[in-house]
Amino acid sequence: MTTSSATQIRLAKNTPGIPDASFWNFTHDPVEAPKEGEVKIKLHYISIDPAMRGWMTPIRSYMPPVQIGEVMRAFGIGEVIESKNNQFAVGDFVHGFTGVQTEASLDATFLRKLNLDDAPLDVQMGGLGWPGFTGYFGMTDICNPQPGDVVVVSGASGAVGEVACQVAKYAGAYVIGIAGGEKKCAYLRDELNLNAVIDYKNDDVKAKLKEVAPKGVDVYFDNVGGDTLNTVLGMIRYKARIAVCGAISQYANMDKPQGPGNYMKLISSSGTMRGFTMKDYLMQIPEASQQLATWYNEGQLKVQTHVVDGIENFADTLQMLFHGKNFGKLMVKL
Amino acid sequence: MTTSSATQIRLAKNTPGIPDASFWNFTHDPVEAPKEGEVKIKLHYISIDPAMRGWMTPIRSYMPPVQIGEVMRAFGIGEVIESKNNQFAVGDFVHGFTGVQTEASLDATFLRKLNLDDAPLDVQMGGLGWPGFTGYFGMTDICNPQPGDVVVVSGASGAVGEVACQVAKYAGAYVIGIAGGEKKCAYLRDELNLNAVIDYKNDDVKAKLKEVAPKGVDVYFDNVGGDTLNTVLGMIRYKARIAVCGAISQYANMDKPQGPGNYMKLISSSGTMRGFTMKDYLMQIPEASQQLATWYNEGQLKVQTHVVDGIENFADTLQMLFHGKNFGKLMVKL
Repeated sequence: MTTSSATQIRLAKNTPGIPDASFWNFTHDPVEAPKEGEVKIKLHYISIDPAMRGWMTPIRSYMPPVQIGEVMRAFGIGEVIESKNNQFAVGDFVHGFTGVQTEASLDATFLRKLNLDDAPLDVQMGGLGWPGFTGYFGMTDICNPQPGDVVVVSGASGAVGEVACQVAKYAGAYVIGIAGGEKKCAYLRDELNLNAVIDYKNDDVKAKLKEVAPKGVDVYFDNVGGDTLNTVLGMIRYKARIAVCGAISQYANMDKPQGPGNYMKLISSSGTMRGFTMKDYLMQIPEASQQLATWYNEGQLKVQTHVVDGIENFADTLQMLFHGKNFGKLMVKL
Repeated sequence: MTTSSATQIRLAKNTPGIPDASFWNFTHDPVEAPKEGEVKIKLHYISIDPAMRGWMTPIRSYMPPVQIGEVMRAFGIGEVIESKNNQFAVGDFVHGFTGVQTEASLDATFLRKLNLDDAPLDVQMGGLGWPGFTGYFGMTDICNPQPGDVVVVSGASGAVGEVACQVAKYAGAYVIGIAGGEKKCAYLRDELNLNAVIDYKNDDVKAKLKEVAPKGVDVYFDNVGGDTLNTVLGMIRYKARIAVCGAISQYANMDKPQGPGNYMKLISSSGTMRGFTMKDYLMQIPEASQQLATWYNEGQLKVQTHVVDGIENFADTLQMLFHGKNFGKLMVKL
């Protein structure tokens, strides 16, 4: 038996708030050999996601919470270095719940093999991966934009938002992206060619939205919650669809989250507000994966990734999310 | 020309809050003769509805607001006393937007002729009328309860709620009604045979709901908003459906309504919250009308009405709504 040089990051506490370094313990426990059906992987990328805040909260949600002392849950991309599963060979690259660690032996049932020809690995973690699928299904299935519909996407330059925006553009909608700061807004305007862009850090969101959507909003893809959700709800049109995907503005505030007082506009507008997670679409991943890869390789889908080097930077990188400091899909490269 | 003894109640102010007597002016203007296509009717019943608070608010909603000096908008049932429309004969009874007045000449396009054999007129204003249709479509189309589903209805003894409850019972759901006070709760328990009843005036709603719905809630038909909506949202199950029909707890508070912080549960539960008004179902009224009349005459549908005599009691009667003092469909009889 060789001594492992693997690193694991474990949950040290589960109080509310934006998690800083004190939330984590580093360990260097040896990695067990894979059992029958498992594979051992060497991690290349660890995904940094808003959902992590939820997984750390000790309340049963769509997944059980991570326990104190457990390796933190995360999506990752790794290379198979030992296989006890005949679906996976050494050298294959896989995506799945790997945890925040450098190596792991994992049940292969829920791992997805990646096609290296589709796109670089970081892109397959972002726009062509789980966040991209989330934007794709939320926009197509829940929002169902029609030609000419006025579509608003918040967190528009993020990994989920940018795909949601582009899917709506392809559907022929008039797409308005909301993001923070000139750099992100320039990307939305100049690279994604959105019809209008709102910079929530510099614009009065309500006034600007009235200016660019004078007749109101048909579709809202919400990644942020808070005041933005309330403002858009106040402007919805008849039979509007709101996909509730995330609430990054509220995750540090989960003991007393802000509810949208304008939800009553749903009554007078016969609007629908629907939440979802990728859990609802697991069986349809191949459809999204193929469609997004096709668009990407035709040059029709643009995606942005934000890669930080080194597992030792995990805590700092996670904090960037809650301050909107990332630009594109955030991940740690090992 | 004879001098009219008609009475009209007109909007005197449109400030927020529960409308007291100071919101109304009484006039005794003569009623014009019906023009071509119109009928003149003598009012028998005027419906008192939560929607009135919205119609008085000077914000464009699903209908334009009532202007200061205009006759207050209301549903009513009247008898045709003069007809210039060949679809309606003198002696017919009709339902529609009659306004709060004793007589009126009205465009007959949107009047609905009542079948006196279906049920007494007060019942046709309540459970077999507009509120009943609202409960019927909200429950069938938006909530779509399945056998064994846990269904919660607030304002359950009201005109909309009692029909929603009974429609859910017919679908084979486990139905929990929320109402205020022992009299209403006894009605829900003993007359409507609901599976469980919560008295929001005497029970801890959250604790009681956890007791009677330990596995959570599949369907919520919301007539009240506020804390009750938030509590139920916190307990929804996977793919829950919430029909947002009204928010009686918030109508006096429309400048700063309470939003449900637990709306985020929609994400983790893949839940849907959908608003509606009868505007969405105008073409399907005959379906609901026939179904509800059939159930009523078979003794399978029970409805409660609360009739107050005299147009002079309009202002006091409207206030009863906002204090939950009515029991069943509230109306003024002329």
